Amino acid sequence: MYRKLAAELIGTFWLVLGGCGSAVLAANFGEHGIGLLGVALAFGLSVVTMAYAIGPISGCHLNPAVSVGLMVGGRFPAADVLPYILAQLVGGLLAGGALYLIASGAVGFDAASGFAANGYGDHSPGGYSLGAVLLCEVIMTAIFLFVIMGATDRDAPAGFAPLAIGLTLALIHLISIPVSNTSVNPARSLAVAFYAAPWALEQLWAFWLAPLVGGSLGALVYRVVRGR
Amino acid sequence: MYRKLAAELIGTFWLVLGGCGSAVLAANFGEHGIGLLGVALAFGLSVVTMAYAIGPISGCHLNPAVSVGLMVGGRFPAADVLPYILAQLVGGLLAGGALYLIASGAVGFDAASGFAANGYGDHSPGGYSLGAVLLCEVIMTAIFLFVIMGATDRDAPAGFAPLAIGLTLALIHLISIPVSNTSVNPARSLAVAFYAAPWALEQLWAFWLAPLVGGSLGALVYRVVRGR
Amino acid sequence: MYRKLAAELIGTFWLVLGGCGSAVLAANFGEHGIGLLGVALAFGLSVVTMAYAIGPISGCHLNPAVSVGLMVGGRFPAADVLPYILAQLVGGLLAGGALYLIASGAVGFDAASGFAANGYGDHSPGGYSLGAVLLCEVIMTAIFLFVIMGATDRDAPAGFAPLAIGLTLALIHLISIPVSNTSVNPARSLAVAFYAAPWALEQLWAFWLAPLVGGSLGALVYRVVRGR
Amino acid sequence: MYRKLAAELIGTFWLVLGGCGSAVLAANFGEHGIGLLGVALAFGLSVVTMAYAIGPISGCHLNPAVSVGLMVGGRFPAADVLPYILAQLVGGLLAGGALYLIASGAVGFDAASGFAANGYGDHSPGGYSLGAVLLCEVIMTAIFLFVIMGATDRDAPAGFAPLAIGLTLALIHLISIPVSNTSVNPARSLAVAFYAAPWALEQLWAFWLAPLVGGSLGALVYRVVRGR
Repeated sequence: MYRKLAAELIGTFWLVLGGCGSAVLAANFGEHGIGLLGVALAFGLSVVTMAYAIGPISGCHLNPAVSVGLMVGGRFPAADVLPYILAQLVGGLLAGGALYLIASGAVGFDAASGFAANGYGDHSPGGYSLGAVLLCEVIMTAIFLFVIMGATDRDAPAGFAPLAIGLTLALIHLISIPVSNTSVNPARSLAVAFYAAPWALEQLWAFWLAPLVGGSLGALVYRVVRGR
Repeated sequence: MYRKLAAELIGTFWLVLGGCGSAVLAANFGEHGIGLLGVALAFGLSVVTMAYAIGPISGCHLNPAVSVGLMVGGRFPAADVLPYILAQLVGGLLAGGALYLIASGAVGFDAASGFAANGYGDHSPGGYSLGAVLLCEVIMTAIFLFVIMGATDRDAPAGFAPLAIGLTLALIHLISIPVSNTSVNPARSLAVAFYAAPWALEQLWAFWLAPLVGGSLGALVYRVVRGR
Repeated sequence: MYRKLAAELIGTFWLVLGGCGSAVLAANFGEHGIGLLGVALAFGLSVVTMAYAIGPISGCHLNPAVSVGLMVGGRFPAADVLPYILAQLVGGLLAGGALYLIASGAVGFDAASGFAANGYGDHSPGGYSLGAVLLCEVIMTAIFLFVIMGATDRDAPAGFAPLAIGLTLALIHLISIPVSNTSVNPARSLAVAFYAAPWALEQLWAFWLAPLVGGSLGALVYRVVRGR
Repeated sequence: MYRKLAAELIGTFWLVLGGCGSAVLAANFGEHGIGLLGVALAFGLSVVTMAYAIGPISGCHLNPAVSVGLMVGGRFPAADVLPYILAQLVGGLLAGGALYLIASGAVGFDAASGFAANGYGDHSPGGYSLGAVLLCEVIMTAIFLFVIMGATDRDAPAGFAPLAIGLTLALIHLISIPVSNTSVNPARSLAVAFYAAPWALEQLWAFWLAPLVGGSLGALVYRVVRGR
């Protein structure tokens, strides 16, 4: 078990450093920064790459909503959910800290200006209301778990699940960064909210609630559609 | 059968929410929006990801032109075409509604300004004539079905069809968004036209006619070239 | 044999329509056009997608430099080279014509302003000299054939060759569009030069010479390195 | 052995020409240049494509930090490390020279203005301190080797390692180009520093030290987590 937890910790470290790191360090770097498209690909590739590396060890969840969703979907033992989530939170927080250290090595860095935190209302990148943010996060996480359940089903082609799952995360970000900065992952939200301005922690509840509800919903829908 | 229809409904929901959603919410988001390149990748990834999830259930058509084309190509029973199309239309319209709800959660949203609808003449993004739009849509859908027929043929390498097909849709969008906003999919066109300005419904016929003709043509050409 | 030639014709049609089409129609479309990055991906994806569709039929060369290179590399019979090249030229020219028809459906289109033709000196996008262009095209086509030989070798992992080869073409364009608009393919160069300004046909010799020399060189180097 | 060294030489030539070449020639080419996103993809695709071509020959390291890391990880014989590194350095320097020749074929080229060299402090693209640069390079190379060890492990899905490893390099660049121009590869750093301004050679030590330390660390961590 401790091997699995170490893998989840390192994997979530990579997801947060890759996704939030590219957002903080490179998204707006001059006129040729990577932009929202680059950030979306970074989040996706963090899962694609880590899933090929640690998939055989821990399953590469990297996300409490994935662990809970897979439990609801009958694919993951309930007893392992809490340890997995703990490892994910620690890995994410370590990545947030490493990113803070790197980012503060440049003049003019100010974590309070965002640090890739998720938010709604005044703190949504595009000024989206709490209702729109919750709806968007629920739908996105539901589809995420639906694809995860399908791509890892026994009749899906072997070896392609990391690609399908990571690219789903990329697509989720292509759609929804302007809405909520895109969470669908409570560990990712906590990881940067911890270092950002106080509002990020105050709004954090929404990015635990919506992904956990959406992820459970998506896994359930898959079971109903699949009929097993 | 109802499992297949549920899969098609959810899959088309994702195609419209992913493709049109990224166009409406993220394409023009400030100077670092995802642009036409991001929208093209979003459409492509919606198919890549869903095909790995539901390919084994329904074949993942998500598009009336694909269902009709595959029937013409001898790969899909005629009796299933109408139920599939119905499920695709419902899934697309639900996605259009969900996108409308999310998008209207930000101040200043106005569906009449486009909502990713397809159009020709004055409503073509680049002002392309009806003739150019029809020609473009016919050719694009023909190649789309040609690749679908080939990539799912029995001597194609197993497991790669979702990638080949989804990336074809991405490439189609890389070429033709300025021409018609790219349809090649009547369900995608209806899904947003329903919520957009009246012109979108008035021009909708073109985005049923051209994809259905083109898709049938592409499947026929493949059969002739393949010789079986 | 005629099935193979039909496949090469259709495949080269797609390469030119996808690559040059995205360049002509979408690269500079407002501030959110797909840019050089989008064009590079379009060329790459045209090969990825077509190779999964027609690879089992014709091998999916789509390029005289590939057919000649594979002959030099001992992978393709000399007697088939000329028919393949003829089919590629016809497919490319048809795509150039289709693109011309579509593009001229918008007000203000002028093929003489470029039409994605390859050029050197004053007609190089970045003003690169003939020497730099020849050197660049020779090296790029040499690496292209080196990767094609390796990725289709018998101990390469099955099914991945279309991805490896298409992504090599994408990378070649990421590097060299500013130098020569990137040819590495005489059929692609002829296909648009035919419809562009007179200088494009006058400079066409360079984009036959360099790719054919480079492709042959790359295939030879692979054979020496591989030792068989 | 000489076949392996020839493959490493050619592969590293491609990595430097693809990655640094796209940075020098295309990144800032007008308003539609490929930007940091395009450069990140170019570095990643150079490894994806070459790994499918020469993976079966040499393992496709293309990087002293990879050869050393794999030795530390128990996957590569110590006696082969120095010859591999030598071949990588020669291939990289040849690519730097070829790039210099091509780039100087355009008016106004000046290698002293950067030539894609890695740097810290005043020579970091975003002005990052030496400490931030070292930390970033160590972490990035550690994750790089961690993924390489995992994706090539015996229970990883066959054939996907080139994709996983190359996309990891792309993601590393998406995060860290603004920090150090991204090295994680001493051969890549030397290859362009040799032709750039004197500061590039003076700062080169950092881009040998950090990648070699990070790579060894990442391989060790993988062995501990994997337990074999």
